[in-house]
Amino acid sequence: MPAPLDPVDLTARLIRCPSVTPEEGGALRLLEAELSAAGFVCTRVDRGETANLFARWGAKGANRAFGFNGHTDVVPPGNPADWRFDPFSATLAEGRLYGRGACDMKSGVAAFVAAAVDFVRETPPDGAVILAITGDEEGDATDGTVALLDWMAAQGERMSHCIVGEPTCPEVMGEMMKNGRRGSMTARIEARGSQGHAAYPHRAKNPLPALVRLLDRLASHELDRGNALFDPSTLALTTIDTGNPATNVIPAKARAVLNIRFNDLHSGASLTSWLEGEIARVTEETGVDFSLVVKVSGESFVTEPGWFTDLVADAVEAVCERRPALSTSGGTSDARFVKDHCPVVEFGLVGQSMHKTDEHVEVAHVQQLKAVYRRMLDAYFA
Amino acid sequence: MPAPLDPVDLTARLIRCPSVTPEEGGALRLLEAELSAAGFVCTRVDRGETANLFARWGAKGANRAFGFNGHTDVVPPGNPADWRFDPFSATLAEGRLYGRGACDMKSGVAAFVAAAVDFVRETPPDGAVILAITGDEEGDATDGTVALLDWMAAQGERMSHCIVGEPTCPEVMGEMMKNGRRGSMTARIEARGSQGHAAYPHRAKNPLPALVRLLDRLASHELDRGNALFDPSTLALTTIDTGNPATNVIPAKARAVLNIRFNDLHSGASLTSWLEGEIARVTEETGVDFSLVVKVSGESFVTEPGWFTDLVADAVEAVCERRPALSTSGGTSDARFVKDHCPVVEFGLVGQSMHKTDEHVEVAHVQQLKAVYRRMLDAYFA
Ligand SMILES: [Zn+2]
Ligand SMILES: [Zn+2]
Repeated sequence: MPAPLDPVDLTARLIRCPSVTPEEGGALRLLEAELSAAGFVCTRVDRGETANLFARWGAKGANRAFGFNGHTDVVPPGNPADWRFDPFSATLAEGRLYGRGACDMKSGVAAFVAAAVDFVRETPPDGAVILAITGDEEGDATDGTVALLDWMAAQGERMSHCIVGEPTCPEVMGEMMKNGRRGSMTARIEARGSQGHAAYPHRAKNPLPALVRLLDRLASHELDRGNALFDPSTLALTTIDTGNPATNVIPAKARAVLNIRFNDLHSGASLTSWLEGEIARVTEETGVDFSLVVKVSGESFVTEPGWFTDLVADAVEAVCERRPALSTSGGTSDARFVKDHCPVVEFGLVGQSMHKTDEHVEVAHVQQLKAVYRRMLDAYFA
Repeated sequence: MPAPLDPVDLTARLIRCPSVTPEEGGALRLLEAELSAAGFVCTRVDRGETANLFARWGAKGANRAFGFNGHTDVVPPGNPADWRFDPFSATLAEGRLYGRGACDMKSGVAAFVAAAVDFVRETPPDGAVILAITGDEEGDATDGTVALLDWMAAQGERMSHCIVGEPTCPEVMGEMMKNGRRGSMTARIEARGSQGHAAYPHRAKNPLPALVRLLDRLASHELDRGNALFDPSTLALTTIDTGNPATNVIPAKARAVLNIRFNDLHSGASLTSWLEGEIARVTEETGVDFSLVVKVSGESFVTEPGWFTDLVADAVEAVCERRPALSTSGGTSDARFVKDHCPVVEFGLVGQSMHKTDEHVEVAHVQQLKAVYRRMLDAYFA
């Protein structure tokens, strides 16, 4: 039997593949070679500029098919001269591995690939292990996990449960797992009046008083107080712009953008209705018309606490000697797509250096993460 | 005795002087020649880039010294190709004289110069006639009428009453005179918070909700309902800007500008105090700090209706067969400076084409305006 796969070495080899979205950079080819050697059936599912890799060990359509989801694409490194080491050199120093993707999330992918390869070699399960690895998580995300899941559905490939390997721990390894995420939506609002001279406001229709009244109401409104599974929903005004340099001119138009992170007490549709209602009220009061363009980038979802979240938490606790808190906090991840396919939980490393200069990972944490994923597999097929 | 001075011909000669602020363009030299020939003592009072002309007929320090104030500088013509005729050609067509300054206000200056010259030649008064003509009304206005009035005060030169010859009639010649103006001030407000990720608003301090709350309160507030002499004061939000392109980022700062046109129930100082109070209230509620920069470009003033406004109205009615309404509406003019020197009233032409392409004046109106100014002089010294 081959020696166990070293997840730190695999992470280093992945970092050396310059896979800045949407470049494949050799990362998926490297994984395909490792997985094929261990008996995984590998299929490249490429869409547009994006490369994705589907790998299955065991029979198609197995009842128990444990899945892992992750991405090998990385955000650009910025100016390499700002880095302590070349961002694609994967340099080891003081027990840490440095490089773009060291934390988000070539280490996570290496850990679950290494765990899965060892597992099927050492204790071949009665079921399937599926790895759904995408090259478009940091970009538009349309040709990545979404395309891979669509392809799987069309092929009759399915996972019964899935782990997303993104970093989930704020500061300490093992302290947090995610069993859901708030939804996210962006609303672009334009108020349209008519231009005029500031000395004669009754001859113009100033869009700004109407816009600030609307935005004050939206920002002051308490969407909810959260619940047992979720933090309160939040609304953030992110920009208001007019671009009128003349202090004696009333402008014709003004624009604002806001971002809502919402829990399961709302949906993209219910919040859009609320925005439309508030806009209609202000239009009635002021005569100013608005346009509203909403983009829902993900609905909220939750995987109810139960045996599956316990299985994950038990594995983490056994390795890290710390029981992870269940959380639905933070931004969005590809779990928002996976949840339509099967129950999904996220667990991974400490995310502090994600997307930053001198991104790095503790070597010991990568070994721990492989061990955690292996324990999940052992328990799932026990 | 020389022939009467033709105000239309004089307007045309002035239009042919390209006196775009701050260029003198030959306009004041032309007037100085005409006035000197009629016995006016002329003094050029130049400050910085600005040329001004002071002209007096009669004794310095006379008890009765009737003044006229106006400007020969003009706003830029824009693209000459957009004009029907070259903007500095002073072309006559269909009873109108076309050119930059035809309406604002080379015609007004020509009318009062022609009236004054004829008057002192035909019926030399017991008193003085003073013309205070500036080349910086359309610019910053600091080196124009203000500098001229300062110079006059230092020289012991004074006017007992003054007419500003700016256009005052909205549509029909003779329908309106101005016996005051609202004040004008501009406030620049910056809200300062701290940047953060839109998914974690509690870790940032978003300046936008504080800013829109403040602006909604300011714009919704009824400053007053006007009084017998003034329209209600108005507040116009003119721009709000953030410049944050990232929909997932809470910005650190945002700016807004507003313009207040205020009557004599307020002052620049009282309104600044009000703004400071509203800002302090929002800072207390939100923790967001603001900076406020106020520029008062003119306090409100009024010349109480009485014998002087009657003298002006009588002269207008006699010539135009229409009694002008007294008004304090509209923007600001140099009357805001003259009022600190002596009682001031504004009367002039129909202002519709001011600052526009194809600016023009009705030839008949210029003749009427000269006749109106002449009647004022006759009545004042009768
Ligand atoms: Zn990631
Ligand atoms: Zn003017």
